[in-house]
Amino acid sequence: MSCYKLALLQMKMSDDREENFAKAESMAREAAAAGAKVICLPELFLSPYFCKIEDPDRFDLAEEIPGEGSERVSRLAKELNVVIISSLFEKRARGLYHNTCLTFDSDGAMPGVYRKMHIPDDPGYYEKFYFTPGDTGYKAVDTSAGKIGTLVCWDQWYPEAARLTALEGADIICYPTAIGWLPSDAEGLGKDQHQAWQAVQRGHAVANGVYIAACNRVGFEAEPSLKGGEGIYFWGQSFVIDPFGRVVAVASKDAEEILYAEIDSEIIEQTRRWWPFLRDRRIDSYSGIVNRHNLGCF
Amino acid sequence: MSCYKLALLQMKMSDDREENFAKAESMAREAAAAGAKVICLPELFLSPYFCKIEDPDRFDLAEEIPGEGSERVSRLAKELNVVIISSLFEKRARGLYHNTCLTFDSDGAMPGVYRKMHIPDDPGYYEKFYFTPGDTGYKAVDTSAGKIGTLVCWDQWYPEAARLTALEGADIICYPTAIGWLPSDAEGLGKDQHQAWQAVQRGHAVANGVYIAACNRVGFEAEPSLKGGEGIYFWGQSFVIDPFGRVVAVASKDAEEILYAEIDSEIIEQTRRWWPFLRDRRIDSYSGIVNRHNLGCF
Repeated sequence: MSCYKLALLQMKMSDDREENFAKAESMAREAAAAGAKVICLPELFLSPYFCKIEDPDRFDLAEEIPGEGSERVSRLAKELNVVIISSLFEKRARGLYHNTCLTFDSDGAMPGVYRKMHIPDDPGYYEKFYFTPGDTGYKAVDTSAGKIGTLVCWDQWYPEAARLTALEGADIICYPTAIGWLPSDAEGLGKDQHQAWQAVQRGHAVANGVYIAACNRVGFEAEPSLKGGEGIYFWGQSFVIDPFGRVVAVASKDAEEILYAEIDSEIIEQTRRWWPFLRDRRIDSYSGIVNRHNLGCF
Repeated sequence: MSCYKLALLQMKMSDDREENFAKAESMAREAAAAGAKVICLPELFLSPYFCKIEDPDRFDLAEEIPGEGSERVSRLAKELNVVIISSLFEKRARGLYHNTCLTFDSDGAMPGVYRKMHIPDDPGYYEKFYFTPGDTGYKAVDTSAGKIGTLVCWDQWYPEAARLTALEGADIICYPTAIGWLPSDAEGLGKDQHQAWQAVQRGHAVANGVYIAACNRVGFEAEPSLKGGEGIYFWGQSFVIDPFGRVVAVASKDAEEILYAEIDSEIIEQTRRWWPFLRDRRIDSYSGIVNRHNLGCF
């Protein structure tokens, strides 16, 4: 059985990579001093969310892995003796980029590399232009704090991704995230959008008996040429949900913040004893999950 | 595009089969008179929830399909010109019983037979004694009110079941249900249990862009020999959730009631245009869903 303090670093980002990196390091140091053993950063924490428009110059933001960015996070994990979940824009080859999540263990080793599998493409979130869909599959990696699964943002909407990560043995699934409102949404559908986002992830927690953590960025990021508005309001509200579906911690919607929660594997054990959903899965009947759809004539 | 009124008949059941049947017919007539085009009954509506203990005499409650019970529901559907979703205890052969959900179209035809795929077995819910796991797979049937999927109670906890039913083209997934609190739960974990039950189904609605409806029984059913208490409080609170994850209707927790909701396929269309989760499914990466688990040495 293990029990530890998780910290989500809900951040605002500027155009200055060094400023973002230094802020992440400073918040991580504060979290570690407060006793956190696992620290999760928001999606693509080294820059503003650059996918708001399609601009080939923005591939300059990408970096190789291993490289200067990943090595700097590795040193931080080792220095603080904590697990760090870090999201980077990976340049794998010329013309081949990924949205990649790295898990560093508390000795600085990098046992986990996950490349975002589900790539969105919506007004203001033109990720299909930048990111090749991941080829890592779904993973839970052994760390000094137990088995940790990582998925990224749009993966949040896919029960298959959560299930497959849980079947790898994850105690917790952490989602570095960048989600917000277009100015045109914030007044109308905005509340429903936020509620749906939390609801689908509560579903993953209950269905799988795992902790779910989403670490979002926060604040307004200007993008004057974005259609439908002049930028995105990232809605913060990073959260942690326990294996019973209870929302045990939520951050504010407009401020930078370190959000803490206790992760207790005994709660996973007890929840799954009483609600043994894994026991009754009808694995003989699920093969159709790999179909695109079952309507239509071919 | 179609738009219709759905009615869920949240009922209490007695030991008198005829009384239960007559009550269901009466409530269905009221719902049809109020304009309902699809009517859903609770799980096993012709008797108390008999699985509270394991008693071989209770197989006497089962019936063949087609048979007197199914034919009586068929006549009701035709008389009222409505679709009826009906849950029966099916005797398929000596020693072979199912928890079966039948969909009757408004002409009395029976286009849908679904046998509960996921069978629970928990204190007070000894279903593995009574029900052979279903062999129908997941279905959405064409009715005069559009494509309707049916699943049953414990299936509610399985994202695979909801996904596979949605991929069959369902606009709505209806769950006849029998869920409640043991007296020992009601004071402590009861609220969390209810919340988790609703949360996992909100997740199905959001992930699949479908309506979700759960029709539960309500009220206390005595079972003096049940360990841990003297019966079950069925918690009612039947609900309808729209494709955006909004809870659009909820019944009371302690009274019989007809719960109505408008089902509008245009809302499915618009939700899926803005949140096109089906577009981005990574069907090349989901084959591991048919594994039991991925830990262990074999």
